[in-house]
Amino acid sequence: MSDKYGVSGQNKVRQLREKAAYDNETVHGVLDAGLVAHVAFVQDGEPVVVPMLYGRDGETLYLHGARKARVIRLLEGTGNACINVTLLDGLVFARSAFASSMNYRSVTVFGKARLVDDWEDKKHALHVIAECTMPGRRAELRKSTDNELKMTGIIAVDIESASAKISTGMPEDEDIDLDTPVWAGVLPLESRFTTLQSDDLVQDGVEPSAALQSLEHEKL
Amino acid sequence: MSDKYGVSGQNKVRQLREKAAYDNETVHGVLDAGLVAHVAFVQDGEPVVVPMLYGRDGETLYLHGARKARVIRLLEGTGNACINVTLLDGLVFARSAFASSMNYRSVTVFGKARLVDDWEDKKHALHVIAECTMPGRRAELRKSTDNELKMTGIIAVDIESASAKISTGMPEDEDIDLDTPVWAGVLPLESRFTTLQSDDLVQDGVEPSAALQSLEHEKL
Repeated sequence: MSDKYGVSGQNKVRQLREKAAYDNETVHGVLDAGLVAHVAFVQDGEPVVVPMLYGRDGETLYLHGARKARVIRLLEGTGNACINVTLLDGLVFARSAFASSMNYRSVTVFGKARLVDDWEDKKHALHVIAECTMPGRRAELRKSTDNELKMTGIIAVDIESASAKISTGMPEDEDIDLDTPVWAGVLPLESRFTTLQSDDLVQDGVEPSAALQSLEHEKL
Repeated sequence: MSDKYGVSGQNKVRQLREKAAYDNETVHGVLDAGLVAHVAFVQDGEPVVVPMLYGRDGETLYLHGARKARVIRLLEGTGNACINVTLLDGLVFARSAFASSMNYRSVTVFGKARLVDDWEDKKHALHVIAECTMPGRRAELRKSTDNELKMTGIIAVDIESASAKISTGMPEDEDIDLDTPVWAGVLPLESRFTTLQSDDLVQDGVEPSAALQSLEHEKL
């Protein structure tokens, strides 16, 4: 496997090209940091976008929904998917409105969508999604029932092309604006887990596992 | 104006309907809390989704991009847009994988896209976007130049239909799973600004304004 995605008309970053990256490591890093993907599909010629849980296994993304959900039925039927995962990292206060912006990590993936129908493949996909979103949790829970598996819809998308766009650091003002007596800088935005909150119905003496506790205060 | 969006095939929430809301107040609340919108459009029959900065003015969303950006040109040309804003609020650890989920606030908006071309309308739209993303900052900065305005692309979308889907609180396990000696609960995810970081080139003695300081430690 190459360590860079090929650049084509499909995935080429056209604006702010200096922030673009096409290497697998950068793309995977953003996909692995995110928890929700925005998935676009076409319904009767019109664009639709829905947020979905997902997991990555190598060059495959698994998208999670209800089996009868529109997004699952339409992706199954239409074939092509475009997926974006964006994490916002802060506001960038420049000395002009035009140069003001945000810091972010963003990845766009293109690929063909296929329904994961085979029982064992579906279990594997669910395991991947669970480990990506709630690492270590799956092993603490009972097996899924046949009915639960039946009611779950999984779409697999093998990454055909992808690009990352990453913006970090301080504002890039025009030289002419640097003389202005206006404060400039960044205000970081952090997405961070806080502390576990127990359901009232948890049995006496049952505590969260080490795996769950290790997620506390983690940053995306 | 009605205080609820009409429910049609376009915006009807089909899964987890008990989490759906169609009132303007709920929809506006999520739109005003978010900073990035995921906008879907169709290019040569294929779905594409891009993250965009935006602002809300009543029942109009303004989307921000470069004038020559593909998303601006295509939305201008194709007419229909679907926009989703999602904020993640936490992981929901249920006693089964099937009942495990996330807490979130999510809004989907449908409407016709039109290019904002008139000079005064464009200035108004930029003001709205600036106030939504960096409240109070615009007044501290110089006026935009004609060239900056020319290079900026704004798409306006009047909200035709919309829905919110909001998930909060504790896991909803099947009764049969409540006897399990497995911990259950939520791990909240907070997106919060930290503290302002100054650009090295800021002139001596220039401090961030009260407006910027009041954003520190704010939660989305």
